[in-house]
Amino acid sequence: MVIELRSDTFTLPTKEMLEAVNPNYLGDDIYGEDSYVLELERKAAEIFDKEASILFPSGTMANLTAIMAHSPRGSKVIVGNESDIYIYEAGGASVCGGIIYEPINTQEDGRLLVQDIERAIPLNKEDPQFSLPSLICIENPHNRMGGRILPLSYLKEMSEYARSKELPIHMDGARIFNASQALNVEPRVISEHVDSLQFCLSKGLSAPIGSMLVGNKDFILKARRIRKMLGGGMRQAGIIARPGIVALNNMVSRLKKDHENAEKFGIGLSKIPGIECNVEKIETNIVFFRVIDERYSLIEFIKLAKYNNLNIDELGYGRIRAVTHSGIDSEDIEQALTIIKKIMK
Amino acid sequence: MVIELRSDTFTLPTKEMLEAVNPNYLGDDIYGEDSYVLELERKAAEIFDKEASILFPSGTMANLTAIMAHSPRGSKVIVGNESDIYIYEAGGASVCGGIIYEPINTQEDGRLLVQDIERAIPLNKEDPQFSLPSLICIENPHNRMGGRILPLSYLKEMSEYARSKELPIHMDGARIFNASQALNVEPRVISEHVDSLQFCLSKGLSAPIGSMLVGNKDFILKARRIRKMLGGGMRQAGIIARPGIVALNNMVSRLKKDHENAEKFGIGLSKIPGIECNVEKIETNIVFFRVIDERYSLIEFIKLAKYNNLNIDELGYGRIRAVTHSGIDSEDIEQALTIIKKIMK
Amino acid sequence: MVIELRSDTFTLPTKEMLEAVNPNYLGDDIYGEDSYVLELERKAAEIFDKEASILFPSGTMANLTAIMAHSPRGSKVIVGNESDIYIYEAGGASVCGGIIYEPINTQEDGRLLVQDIERAIPLNKEDPQFSLPSLICIENPHNRMGGRILPLSYLKEMSEYARSKELPIHMDGARIFNASQALNVEPRVISEHVDSLQFCLSKGLSAPIGSMLVGNKDFILKARRIRKMLGGGMRQAGIIARPGIVALNNMVSRLKKDHENAEKFGIGLSKIPGIECNVEKIETNIVFFRVIDERYSLIEFIKLAKYNNLNIDELGYGRIRAVTHSGIDSEDIEQALTIIKKIMK
Amino acid sequence: MVIELRSDTFTLPTKEMLEAVNPNYLGDDIYGEDSYVLELERKAAEIFDKEASILFPSGTMANLTAIMAHSPRGSKVIVGNESDIYIYEAGGASVCGGIIYEPINTQEDGRLLVQDIERAIPLNKEDPQFSLPSLICIENPHNRMGGRILPLSYLKEMSEYARSKELPIHMDGARIFNASQALNVEPRVISEHVDSLQFCLSKGLSAPIGSMLVGNKDFILKARRIRKMLGGGMRQAGIIARPGIVALNNMVSRLKKDHENAEKFGIGLSKIPGIECNVEKIETNIVFFRVIDERYSLIEFIKLAKYNNLNIDELGYGRIRAVTHSGIDSEDIEQALTIIKKIMK
Repeated sequence: MVIELRSDTFTLPTKEMLEAVNPNYLGDDIYGEDSYVLELERKAAEIFDKEASILFPSGTMANLTAIMAHSPRGSKVIVGNESDIYIYEAGGASVCGGIIYEPINTQEDGRLLVQDIERAIPLNKEDPQFSLPSLICIENPHNRMGGRILPLSYLKEMSEYARSKELPIHMDGARIFNASQALNVEPRVISEHVDSLQFCLSKGLSAPIGSMLVGNKDFILKARRIRKMLGGGMRQAGIIARPGIVALNNMVSRLKKDHENAEKFGIGLSKIPGIECNVEKIETNIVFFRVIDERYSLIEFIKLAKYNNLNIDELGYGRIRAVTHSGIDSEDIEQALTIIKKIMK
Repeated sequence: MVIELRSDTFTLPTKEMLEAVNPNYLGDDIYGEDSYVLELERKAAEIFDKEASILFPSGTMANLTAIMAHSPRGSKVIVGNESDIYIYEAGGASVCGGIIYEPINTQEDGRLLVQDIERAIPLNKEDPQFSLPSLICIENPHNRMGGRILPLSYLKEMSEYARSKELPIHMDGARIFNASQALNVEPRVISEHVDSLQFCLSKGLSAPIGSMLVGNKDFILKARRIRKMLGGGMRQAGIIARPGIVALNNMVSRLKKDHENAEKFGIGLSKIPGIECNVEKIETNIVFFRVIDERYSLIEFIKLAKYNNLNIDELGYGRIRAVTHSGIDSEDIEQALTIIKKIMK
Repeated sequence: MVIELRSDTFTLPTKEMLEAVNPNYLGDDIYGEDSYVLELERKAAEIFDKEASILFPSGTMANLTAIMAHSPRGSKVIVGNESDIYIYEAGGASVCGGIIYEPINTQEDGRLLVQDIERAIPLNKEDPQFSLPSLICIENPHNRMGGRILPLSYLKEMSEYARSKELPIHMDGARIFNASQALNVEPRVISEHVDSLQFCLSKGLSAPIGSMLVGNKDFILKARRIRKMLGGGMRQAGIIARPGIVALNNMVSRLKKDHENAEKFGIGLSKIPGIECNVEKIETNIVFFRVIDERYSLIEFIKLAKYNNLNIDELGYGRIRAVTHSGIDSEDIEQALTIIKKIMK
Repeated sequence: MVIELRSDTFTLPTKEMLEAVNPNYLGDDIYGEDSYVLELERKAAEIFDKEASILFPSGTMANLTAIMAHSPRGSKVIVGNESDIYIYEAGGASVCGGIIYEPINTQEDGRLLVQDIERAIPLNKEDPQFSLPSLICIENPHNRMGGRILPLSYLKEMSEYARSKELPIHMDGARIFNASQALNVEPRVISEHVDSLQFCLSKGLSAPIGSMLVGNKDFILKARRIRKMLGGGMRQAGIIARPGIVALNNMVSRLKKDHENAEKFGIGLSKIPGIECNVEKIETNIVFFRVIDERYSLIEFIKLAKYNNLNIDELGYGRIRAVTHSGIDSEDIEQALTIIKKIMK
């Protein structure tokens, strides 16, 4: 059996999720008649204490739609230079929205500093040579910074700053429940600081497909229009919404186990000669490490691991990423460590 | 029980479709590792005798992607003025692609005449004031023309014309199996005349979600890139692909029953005083009719029908559309006629 | 000497226009410091009784900017299917603005009928599958309909309709002074019915370069931002603004002569065997005619004319266009008729 | 008299430039019939040893068009984070082209390092989540880095790198003649390393309006199409082209005086207590300095200077920019220094 640590997007739906779908409750969601979708959208809005919510086939589309709903053509969206939105989403906001990305330096813990954002705002807003910012995007937890969680105090500071500049905040919270579980707070304690938030049903929560966008009613109405235009409207979408509901009910609290497994893996790695892993930076289910060994290049090491039934992946700058999830238990972690020890011997 | 004739998009998946999904065969399709998706894409390509195929969450996105893959920024896409692409897809090609729609008059039987297309092609292609056409879109069967089927001879003529102009053809074949079944030909006999074709799994075929785009390898590679950008990449997409496979295996041949029911419904309607229905124009599963009765406006008639548990819808120009599908049997048709007779008494 | 009737865009600036430019009054208009530009913009706003005005390097950019300032991304702009905006401006609003053109049938006299516009407005505005209209564009006088003038009563009707639908109106008034002169009204009597209006300094008015857009202050501020983005901001723009001022001062009233010459040319043409010209339709400086002669194709006739030092051009549907302007006097018209008579002999 | 050092865009045309325009040589450049424009375009192509050239109303549009001609929708353009294209051109490539800006760190001397560009190119080009780069833009001399000139050896290195990656290079050479004069080389010695180049007629060269784009024939044909769409086609454009020709003939060699004046100004500044100016970095006609004086904020200092008839401007990061040009002679520099000394006393 392969130990799959490349991403928590590899999580498979539980049997319960699939069996929960009763075809008679399905309907055409383009007409707003799928009862599972309606229930899921109500539920998501409630969890994050926002007025409304909408289902998407992917987090990429949820983020793209959020940016397009917040930002008019010709304006700038401020993003982290290490954010998934900027790096992995194919530039959709420029293509579909005529919006300019303004990448801002990302701190080691995933924060964008207020002073850096300040510099992206033109002093003279009347001067037509400058595109004006219309949105700040933050990512929480931050994938490419190793699953780091944005502190609540930071969210408060950023939220006050953004309000003072009349800029809305969108949070890419693909793994937001990992953050809320790690912080031991209700999700709404996080979302209260932002105008909109996207989260994935298909990462740690293990539903097969789908991401949710939450925000106020007007915003979600705009999003609904944009979703249709992009082609994200789906027919009997209950087939993915129902598993999503099960995921929200049953899969959230178990994320703590993933965090424990990540920490365990990190501690184990840090003891293996030739492996560098900073355990203190592991806050959720993502573990970054490096291989310092003249025998292996990054790519060769990953290939060797794969050959030994351990799937891991590179994440830029010579780093390897391992992500724990519902398909990984404590024994998998031990075995993964054994495999790596063997390679490094 | 409601008789649902508003659209064949209301079809519910069969129990078999849902039960066929084995979670262990699912994978992350963003990584190309969902075996059901791979199988479905192979199967779709084979059926239409094209090199490759790709799954989308909707027909809207499949059409949008096809247009963007064929048409560079600033070029024109020639569409029918009564086509679903032009009317119901929110102008996506202009928004996301910087492409100009050039609507061409649609004939009563759904055809776009070669001479009308000819007029949309600037005489002087060097003159930069003209946007140049890069694609012709045709729809088959044609929804807003009443499910009319484009004749094979017409497809041949159009294909030869398009080739002579070096213009590719994209077919919006959302209900293409209704056409192939009605014509009693293999789908590839139709698709051989076009460069790309979109069909829906979730209309007559009754799968819950999904549309397929078929074409040559390079085109599908481009489409894959655009799909990601639009946010149409999905994780364990096998949950919709597997029902799609079942649909292709089991639901195609039964479309003939939908055609019979449509004809039966049309014949019945044509005999009701105050109802106008041209039975000769019913070629697939779509029936258009009008109410000529001073007592009812179009909207009132539709509301009355709904009140009597018969769902139908308006389709522009004072027409009512009824669509037969797997959720409608011969008795439903009889009852629908009874309801309408009652209203018209 | 060539008789140039292809277009009034061939008008050369008068000596006076060029000599009026005093380099010391020039400045950098990007900084708002060119006094000629400021004067021209004030003057144009005043003539059309609007709050503000802005100079563009071309009418194409003035129209494009107007559409972008009125219409958000994803909305539809209603245009005539025979309008210059739709046909000759390379689809800029879709490319740069993510806006969808909805071409509406153009009447013989250049009008778009209210009922045709009504059909372009979706009944159900909540339904996200429809792009919503955000602007109506009308053209006055109408180039491709032969320089026809929109009646004031029509403008009133259209303006009331548009207001009832909360749709702004933009008038492509490239040759608006031809209309006001022919109607014998102040330009503001026309512009009061529209929200924005574009006119050309470089057609009948004979300035070398430039078009003006007039509207209210907020609109012009938006336009200024868009102009910069498109690259329409110019440095010492007084070099074209000053001739524009002279043109507005000296070249307007003489347009009546162009109309007289056009009529004279039309009457002459209508008497030549083999030439079809409907004199009643000549309202301004544009003359359309056809050649009904087995000896010549359209293209051959135009070439022959050119060979005889008479420049004319085709304008679609087998029509030839001749345009009078400041470079054409009564004798030129006589000679042009002589040339055509000779060809048709 | 005001000493204008804010920008070399404030240069006024010489009397000779204006008087050189003979109205009889003008024509409609949209039809390609303005002889001055044709001459200017030939001349510009020749100077930079490229196949063809095209006139624009602004450098912003020349750059935007170049990017759109090189880069398809959805691709990335690599720009310096301190480049004028990224900062001052309102994001046009994203708005009009659906292109993503990827800002790269700019070195103190204006260079973008090959290794930084390398990092902007995705390792896995097949992966659709990454937008792919299609163009590298460099700026020479570099405005926001103080008029620094890119070394020829660097251009060679960059050109070889770009070719190895099959990426074209566009040079924003708004002040390219300042570079060629300072380096004492023919302009073509610079342009041979790039695929396209933009230069301004209206900066140091003192023509009133206009920028030229040079490149190979196919590229310029594409640019011509895009220019029309953006609205940059102009009618009797000879009115700006003729002054441009005079500028190219007469105004290039005198740029050396501007460089001398800039150096003189820098040396003078560096001796004033409270002023910081690094004279070694002054390579062309741009001088950067800082005011280290508790009495004045940056803005206050600039205002005081203005009050004393000296116009200068801020350029980000607490820097003041002064630009020499044809309207500034040696005595103006002395007086400017006197004014600043007085303020700093």
